[in-house]
Amino acid sequence: MARSRLTPERESELYAAVLDLLREVGYDALTMDAVATRTRSSKATLYRQWGSKPELVARAMRCSKPHSVAQADTGSLRGDFRAILEMAEEHKMEEDAALMRGLFHAVHTNPDLLQALRELLIEPEIEAFREMLHRAVERGEVAPDNPALGYVIHMIIGAFIARSIIEDLPPDPAFLRSYLDAVVFPALGV
Amino acid sequence: MARSRLTPERESELYAAVLDLLREVGYDALTMDAVATRTRSSKATLYRQWGSKPELVARAMRCSKPHSVAQADTGSLRGDFRAILEMAEEHKMEEDAALMRGLFHAVHTNPDLLQALRELLIEPEIEAFREMLHRAVERGEVAPDNPALGYVIHMIIGAFIARSIIEDLPPDPAFLRSYLDAVVFPALGV
Repeated sequence: MARSRLTPERESELYAAVLDLLREVGYDALTMDAVATRTRSSKATLYRQWGSKPELVARAMRCSKPHSVAQADTGSLRGDFRAILEMAEEHKMEEDAALMRGLFHAVHTNPDLLQALRELLIEPEIEAFREMLHRAVERGEVAPDNPALGYVIHMIIGAFIARSIIEDLPPDPAFLRSYLDAVVFPALGV
Repeated sequence: MARSRLTPERESELYAAVLDLLREVGYDALTMDAVATRTRSSKATLYRQWGSKPELVARAMRCSKPHSVAQADTGSLRGDFRAILEMAEEHKMEEDAALMRGLFHAVHTNPDLLQALRELLIEPEIEAFREMLHRAVERGEVAPDNPALGYVIHMIIGAFIARSIIEDLPPDPAFLRSYLDAVVFPALGV
Protein backbone atom coordinates (compact mmCIF):
# COMPACT_ATOMS: atom_id res chain seq x y z
CA MET A 1 0.00 0.00 0.00
CA ALA A 2 1.36 3.40 -0.97
CA ARG A 3 0.09 5.38 1.97
CA SER A 4 2.80 7.96 1.29
CA ARG A 5 0.88 9.28 -1.72
CA LEU A 6 -1.39 11.29 0.56
CA THR A 7 -0.15 14.38 2.37
CA PRO A 8 -0.52 14.20 6.18
CA GLU A 9 -3.12 17.01 5.93
CA ARG A 10 -5.17 15.08 3.41
CA GLU A 11 -4.91 11.95 5.53
CA SER A 12 -6.16 13.80 8.64
CA GLU A 13 -9.00 15.27 6.61
CA LEU A 14 -10.01 11.79 5.45
CA TYR A 15 -9.86 10.33 8.95
CA ALA A 16 -11.95 13.20 10.34
CA ALA A 17 -14.58 12.55 7.67
CA VAL A 18 -14.63 8.82 8.53
CA LEU A 19 -15.19 9.62 12.21
CA ASP A 20 -17.95 12.11 11.37
CA LEU A 21 -19.68 9.44 9.29
CA LEU A 22 -19.24 6.87 12.05
CA ARG A 23 -20.90 9.22 14.53
CA GLU A 24 -23.73 9.94 12.08
CA VAL A 25 -24.61 6.45 10.82
CA GLY A 26 -22.61 3.88 12.82
CA TYR A 27 -20.19 1.25 11.57
CA ASP A 28 -22.59 -1.09 9.79
CA ALA A 29 -24.20 1.66 7.71
CA LEU A 30 -20.89 3.33 6.88
CA THR A 31 -19.94 2.51 3.28
CA MET A 32 -16.77 3.15 1.34
CA ASP A 33 -19.04 4.91 -1.18
CA ALA A 34 -20.17 7.37 1.48
CA VAL A 35 -16.56 7.97 2.57
CA ALA A 36 -15.55 8.55 -1.06
CA THR A 37 -18.40 11.03 -1.62
CA ARG A 38 -17.82 12.89 1.63
CA THR A 39 -14.09 13.22 1.04
CA ARG A 40 -14.32 13.77 -2.74
CA SER A 41 -11.99 10.85 -3.40
CA SER A 42 -12.44 7.70 -5.45
CA LYS A 43 -13.30 4.36 -3.89
CA ALA A 44 -10.28 2.93 -5.73
CA THR A 45 -8.02 5.36 -3.84
CA LEU A 46 -9.57 4.41 -0.50
CA TYR A 47 -9.09 0.69 -1.12
CA ARG A 48 -5.55 1.23 -2.44
CA GLN A 49 -4.59 3.24 0.62
CA TRP A 50 -6.34 1.24 3.35
CA GLY A 51 -7.24 -2.12 1.90
CA SER A 52 -10.57 -2.42 3.69
CA LYS A 53 -13.23 -0.63 5.69
CA PRO A 54 -12.14 -2.16 9.05
CA GLU A 55 -8.57 -0.97 8.55
CA LEU A 56 -9.68 2.51 7.46
CA VAL A 57 -11.91 2.81 10.53
CA ALA A 58 -9.26 1.49 12.93
CA ARG A 59 -6.63 3.88 11.52
CA ALA A 60 -9.07 6.80 11.73
CA MET A 61 -9.76 5.95 15.39
CA ARG A 62 -6.06 5.69 16.11
CA CYS A 63 -5.26 9.05 14.55
CA SER A 64 -8.06 10.81 16.41
CA LYS A 65 -6.04 10.18 19.60
CA PRO A 66 -3.28 12.74 19.24
CA HIS A 67 -1.32 11.43 22.23
CA SER A 68 -0.57 7.93 23.28
CA VAL A 69 -0.60 6.67 26.83
CA ALA A 70 3.12 6.01 26.45
CA GLN A 71 3.89 9.71 26.14
CA ALA A 72 2.63 10.36 29.65
CA ASP A 73 5.99 9.94 31.38
CA THR A 74 5.82 12.25 34.40
CA GLY A 75 8.00 10.38 36.88
CA SER A 76 5.21 8.84 38.97
CA LEU A 77 2.32 6.48 38.28
CA ARG A 78 -0.24 8.86 39.75
CA GLY A 79 1.22 11.64 37.62
CA ASP A 80 1.08 9.48 34.47
CA PHE A 81 -2.58 8.64 35.05
CA ARG A 82 -3.33 12.30 35.78
CA ALA A 83 -1.65 13.28 32.50
CA ILE A 84 -3.72 10.73 30.57
CA LEU A 85 -6.92 12.10 32.10
CA GLU A 86 -5.87 15.63 31.18
CA MET A 87 -5.20 14.60 27.57
CA ALA A 88 -8.57 12.85 27.54
CA GLU A 89 -10.31 15.95 28.86
CA GLU A 90 -8.79 18.10 26.16
CA HIS A 91 -9.90 15.73 23.46
CA LYS A 92 -13.60 15.29 24.20
CA MET A 93 -13.36 11.93 25.86
CA GLU A 94 -17.13 11.60 26.06
CA GLU A 95 -17.57 11.86 22.32
CA ASP A 96 -14.84 9.30 21.81
CA ALA A 97 -16.43 7.03 24.40
CA ALA A 98 -19.66 7.02 22.39
CA LEU A 99 -17.71 6.15 19.24
CA MET A 100 -15.80 3.38 21.02
CA ARG A 101 -19.06 1.96 22.41
CA GLY A 102 -20.54 1.89 18.92
CA LEU A 103 -17.50 0.09 17.53
CA PHE A 104 -17.42 -2.25 20.49
CA HIS A 105 -20.93 -3.37 19.58
CA ALA A 106 -20.13 -3.57 15.88
CA VAL A 107 -17.27 -6.04 16.48
CA HIS A 108 -19.84 -8.61 17.55
CA THR A 109 -20.93 -9.14 13.95
CA ASN A 110 -17.70 -7.96 12.28
CA PRO A 111 -14.75 -10.13 13.31
CA ASP A 112 -12.50 -8.36 10.79
CA LEU A 113 -13.21 -5.06 12.55
CA LEU A 114 -12.23 -6.64 15.88
CA GLN A 115 -9.03 -7.87 14.26
CA ALA A 116 -8.17 -4.41 12.87
CA LEU A 117 -8.99 -2.68 16.18
CA ARG A 118 -6.90 -5.23 18.09
CA GLU A 119 -3.86 -4.72 15.88
CA LEU A 120 -4.02 -0.97 15.37
CA LEU A 121 -5.66 0.34 18.52
CA ILE A 122 -5.99 -2.09 21.42
CA GLU A 123 -2.60 -3.83 21.35
CA PRO A 124 -0.55 -0.62 21.02
CA GLU A 125 -2.53 0.92 23.91
CA ILE A 126 -2.07 -2.15 26.09
CA GLU A 127 1.62 -2.15 25.25
CA ALA A 128 1.84 1.53 26.25
CA PHE A 129 0.07 0.77 29.54
CA ARG A 130 2.52 -2.07 30.16
CA GLU A 131 5.44 0.31 29.61
CA MET A 132 3.88 2.83 31.99
CA LEU A 133 3.46 0.12 34.65
CA HIS A 134 6.95 -1.18 33.97
CA ARG A 135 8.36 2.29 34.66
CA ALA A 136 6.42 2.34 37.97
CA VAL A 137 7.91 -1.04 38.91
CA GLU A 138 11.43 0.16 37.95
CA ARG A 139 10.99 3.22 40.18
CA GLY A 140 9.93 0.95 43.04
CA GLU A 141 6.38 2.32 43.19
CA VAL A 142 4.75 -1.05 42.52
CA ALA A 143 6.07 -4.43 43.67
CA PRO A 144 7.24 -6.44 40.64
CA ASP A 145 5.14 -9.44 41.73
CA ASN A 146 1.95 -7.46 42.41
CA PRO A 147 -0.73 -9.62 40.71
CA ALA A 148 -2.85 -6.55 39.87
CA LEU A 149 -0.21 -5.49 37.29
CA GLY A 150 -1.83 -7.89 34.80
CA TYR A 151 -5.33 -6.54 35.41
CA VAL A 152 -5.04 -2.76 34.98
CA ILE A 153 -6.71 -2.93 31.57
CA HIS A 154 -9.55 -5.04 33.02
CA MET A 155 -10.15 -2.52 35.80
CA ILE A 156 -10.22 0.41 33.40
CA ILE A 157 -12.45 -1.29 30.83
CA GLY A 158 -14.84 -2.12 33.67
CA ALA A 159 -15.02 1.51 34.69
CA PHE A 160 -15.93 2.59 31.17
CA ILE A 161 -18.42 -0.18 30.38
CA ALA A 162 -20.20 -0.40 33.73
CA ARG A 163 -20.47 3.38 33.91
CA SER A 164 -22.13 3.70 30.52
CA ILE A 165 -24.14 0.47 30.26
CA ILE A 166 -25.17 -0.23 33.86
CA GLU A 167 -25.35 3.29 35.24
CA ASP A 168 -26.23 5.02 31.97
CA LEU A 169 -23.80 7.83 32.80
CA PRO A 170 -20.81 9.17 30.85
CA PRO A 171 -17.38 8.01 32.07
CA ASP A 172 -16.28 11.58 32.79
CA PRO A 173 -12.87 12.50 34.22
CA ALA A 174 -14.22 13.11 37.77
CA PHE A 175 -15.63 9.59 37.88
CA LEU A 176 -12.41 8.10 36.48
CA ARG A 177 -10.31 9.99 39.02
CA SER A 178 -12.45 8.65 41.84
CA TYR A 179 -12.26 5.12 40.39
CA LEU A 180 -8.47 5.27 40.10
CA ASP A 181 -8.21 6.35 43.75
CA ALA A 182 -10.71 3.78 45.00
CA VAL A 183 -9.74 0.77 42.90
CA VAL A 184 -6.66 0.95 40.68
CA PHE A 185 -4.14 2.56 43.05
CA PRO A 186 -5.14 0.44 46.10
CA ALA A 187 -4.97 -2.76 44.01
CA LEU A 188 -1.49 -1.75 42.80
CA GLY A 189 -0.50 -0.78 46.34
CA VAL A 190 0.34 2.77 45.25
CA MET B 1 -50.91 -10.51 32.92
CA ALA B 2 -52.12 -13.87 34.19
CA ARG B 3 -48.74 -15.55 34.58
CA SER B 4 -50.32 -17.95 37.08
CA ARG B 5 -52.06 -19.82 34.28
CA LEU B 6 -48.84 -21.64 33.45
CA THR B 7 -47.49 -24.33 35.72
CA PRO B 8 -43.92 -23.71 36.96
CA GLU B 9 -42.79 -26.74 34.91
CA ARG B 10 -44.32 -25.32 31.75
CA GLU B 11 -42.78 -21.93 32.46
CA SER B 12 -39.29 -23.47 32.89
CA GLU B 13 -39.76 -25.43 29.67
CA LEU B 14 -40.66 -22.24 27.81
CA TYR B 15 -37.69 -20.32 29.23
CA ALA B 16 -35.31 -23.15 28.32
CA ALA B 17 -36.63 -23.08 24.75
CA VAL B 18 -36.13 -19.30 24.57
CA LEU B 19 -32.50 -19.65 25.73
CA ASP B 20 -31.89 -22.46 23.22
CA LEU B 21 -33.20 -20.25 20.45
CA LEU B 22 -31.12 -17.30 21.67
CA ARG B 23 -27.98 -19.46 21.52
CA GLU B 24 -28.91 -20.71 18.05
CA VAL B 25 -29.95 -17.50 16.27
CA GLY B 26 -29.20 -14.54 18.58
CA TYR B 27 -31.58 -11.88 19.87
CA ASP B 28 -32.32 -10.00 16.68
CA ALA B 29 -33.28 -13.11 14.70
CA LEU B 30 -35.33 -14.59 17.56
CA THR B 31 -39.03 -14.15 16.79
CA MET B 32 -42.12 -14.76 18.90
CA ASP B 33 -43.27 -17.02 16.03
CA ALA B 34 -40.18 -19.21 16.46
CA VAL B 35 -40.72 -19.37 20.24
CA ALA B 36 -44.38 -20.32 19.69
CA THR B 37 -43.46 -23.07 17.22
CA ARG B 38 -40.63 -24.45 19.35
CA THR B 39 -42.76 -24.55 22.48
CA ARG B 40 -46.02 -25.56 20.77
CA SER B 41 -47.83 -22.57 22.19
CA SER B 42 -49.73 -19.74 20.52
CA LYS B 43 -48.21 -16.32 19.98
CA ALA B 44 -51.29 -14.88 21.72
CA THR B 45 -50.38 -16.85 24.85
CA LEU B 46 -46.80 -15.62 24.74
CA TYR B 47 -47.84 -11.99 24.43
CA ARG B 48 -50.52 -12.39 27.12
CA GLN B 49 -48.03 -13.92 29.53
CA TRP B 50 -44.98 -11.75 28.85
CA GLY B 51 -46.14 -8.70 26.98
CA SER B 52 -43.11 -8.45 24.70
CA LYS B 53 -40.02 -10.20 23.40
CA PRO B 54 -37.60 -8.17 25.58
CA GLU B 55 -39.52 -9.11 28.74
CA LEU B 56 -39.74 -12.78 27.75
CA VAL B 57 -35.99 -12.88 27.07
CA ALA B 58 -35.09 -11.03 30.28
CA ARG B 59 -37.29 -13.36 32.36
CA ALA B 60 -35.84 -16.43 30.66
CA MET B 61 -32.32 -15.19 31.47
CA ARG B 62 -33.29 -14.51 35.07
CA CYS B 63 -34.79 -17.96 35.57
CA SER B 64 -31.78 -19.70 34.06
CA LYS B 65 -29.82 -18.54 37.10
CA PRO B 66 -31.12 -20.88 39.78
CA HIS B 67 -29.39 -19.05 42.63
CA SER B 68 -29.07 -15.39 43.27
CA VAL B 69 -25.95 -13.67 44.59
CA ALA B 70 -27.99 -12.76 47.66
CA GLN B 71 -28.30 -16.39 48.70
CA ALA B 72 -24.53 -16.70 49.14
CA ASP B 73 -24.50 -15.80 52.85
CA THR B 74 -21.55 -17.71 54.26
CA GLY B 75 -20.42 -15.41 57.06
CA SER B 76 -17.45 -13.84 55.24
CA LEU B 77 -16.99 -11.81 52.06
CA ARG B 78 -14.36 -14.18 50.70
CA GLY B 79 -16.69 -17.09 51.43
CA ASP B 80 -19.61 -15.35 49.72
CA PHE B 81 -17.56 -14.76 46.56
CA ARG B 82 -16.27 -18.33 46.66
CA ALA B 83 -19.87 -19.59 46.90
CA ILE B 84 -20.90 -17.46 43.89
CA LEU B 85 -18.03 -18.89 41.85
CA GLU B 86 -19.04 -22.42 42.84
CA MET B 87 -22.64 -21.79 41.79
CA ALA B 88 -21.34 -20.34 38.53
CA GLU B 89 -19.17 -23.40 37.93
CA GLU B 90 -22.08 -25.74 38.43
CA HIS B 91 -24.19 -23.82 36.00
CA LYS B 92 -21.99 -23.61 32.95
CA MET B 93 -20.87 -20.06 33.43
CA GLU B 94 -19.07 -20.00 30.09
CA GLU B 95 -22.21 -20.79 28.15
CA ASP B 96 -24.06 -18.09 30.06
CA ALA B 97 -21.22 -15.65 29.45
CA ALA B 98 -21.63 -16.16 25.69
CA LEU B 99 -25.36 -15.54 25.99
CA MET B 100 -24.82 -12.43 28.08
CA ARG B 101 -22.28 -11.10 25.59
CA GLY B 102 -24.76 -11.59 22.76
CA LEU B 103 -27.47 -9.74 24.66
CA PHE B 104 -25.03 -7.06 25.70
CA HIS B 105 -24.41 -6.35 22.03
CA ALA B 106 -28.10 -6.55 21.14
CA VAL B 107 -28.98 -3.80 23.63
CA HIS B 108 -27.11 -1.35 21.46
CA THR B 109 -29.91 -1.37 18.87
CA ASN B 110 -32.74 -2.47 21.21
CA PRO B 111 -33.27 0.05 23.99
CA ASP B 112 -36.37 -1.83 25.19
CA LEU B 113 -34.23 -4.93 25.73
CA LEU B 114 -31.78 -2.86 27.80
CA GLN B 115 -34.72 -1.57 29.83
CA ALA B 116 -36.08 -5.10 30.47
CA LEU B 117 -32.62 -6.46 31.36
CA ARG B 118 -32.00 -3.53 33.70
CA GLU B 119 -35.27 -4.05 35.57
CA LEU B 120 -35.36 -7.84 35.68
CA LEU B 121 -31.71 -8.87 35.73
CA ILE B 122 -29.16 -6.13 36.35
CA GLU B 123 -30.84 -4.14 39.12
CA PRO B 124 -31.78 -7.19 41.23
CA GLU B 125 -28.19 -8.52 40.88
CA ILE B 126 -26.68 -5.15 41.82
CA GLU B 127 -29.04 -4.96 44.79
CA ALA B 128 -27.96 -8.46 45.87
CA PHE B 129 -24.29 -7.44 45.59
CA ARG B 130 -25.04 -4.36 47.68
CA GLU B 131 -26.60 -6.55 50.37
CA MET B 132 -23.60 -8.87 50.32
CA LEU B 133 -21.24 -5.90 50.72
CA HIS B 134 -23.49 -4.40 53.39
CA ARG B 135 -23.21 -7.64 55.39
CA ALA B 136 -19.39 -7.43 55.06
CA VAL B 137 -19.48 -3.85 56.38
CA GLU B 138 -21.76 -4.87 59.27
CA ARG B 139 -19.34 -7.66 60.21
CA GLY B 140 -16.48 -5.13 60.21
CA GLU B 141 -14.70 -6.76 57.25
CA VAL B 142 -14.86 -3.64 55.07
CA ALA B 143 -14.65 -0.04 56.32
CA PRO B 144 -18.05 1.66 55.83
CA ASP B 145 -16.41 4.59 54.03
CA ASN B 146 -14.24 2.47 51.70
CA PRO B 147 -14.75 4.17 48.31
CA ALA B 148 -14.34 0.86 46.42
CA LEU B 149 -17.72 -0.30 47.83
CA GLY B 150 -19.42 1.63 45.03
CA TYR B 151 -17.25 0.08 42.32
CA VAL B 152 -17.44 -3.68 42.87
CA ILE B 153 -19.79 -4.09 39.90
CA HIS B 154 -17.42 -2.07 37.71
CA MET B 155 -14.48 -4.24 38.67
CA ILE B 156 -16.36 -7.45 37.96
CA ILE B 157 -17.82 -6.28 34.64
CA GLY B 158 -14.30 -5.28 33.60
CA ALA B 159 -13.02 -8.76 34.36
CA PHE B 160 -15.69 -10.34 32.16
CA ILE B 161 -15.53 -7.91 29.24
CA ALA B 162 -11.77 -7.39 29.05
CA ARG B 163 -11.18 -11.13 29.37
CA SER B 164 -13.48 -12.01 26.49
CA ILE B 165 -13.08 -9.02 24.16
CA ILE B 166 -9.47 -7.96 24.68
CA GLU B 167 -7.87 -11.26 25.57
CA ASP B 168 -10.27 -13.46 23.60
CA LEU B 169 -10.38 -15.95 26.48
CA PRO B 170 -13.33 -17.26 28.49
CA PRO B 171 -13.83 -15.69 31.94
CA ASP B 172 -13.39 -19.05 33.69
CA PRO B 173 -13.51 -19.50 37.47
CA ALA B 174 -9.71 -19.77 37.85
CA PHE B 175 -9.26 -16.38 36.17
CA LEU B 176 -12.04 -14.84 38.28
CA ARG B 177 -10.53 -16.22 41.49
CA SER B 178 -7.17 -14.70 40.60
CA TYR B 179 -8.84 -11.38 39.71
CA LEU B 180 -10.74 -11.25 43.01
CA ASP B 181 -7.49 -11.84 44.92
CA ALA B 182 -5.48 -9.35 42.86
CA VAL B 183 -8.03 -6.56 42.48
CA VAL B 184 -11.35 -6.78 44.31
CA PHE B 185 -10.19 -7.85 47.79
CA PRO B 186 -7.20 -5.45 47.92
CA ALA B 187 -9.40 -2.54 46.78
CA LEU B 188 -11.91 -3.41 49.51
CA GLY B 189 -9.08 -3.83 52.03
CA VAL B 190 -10.17 -7.42 52.76
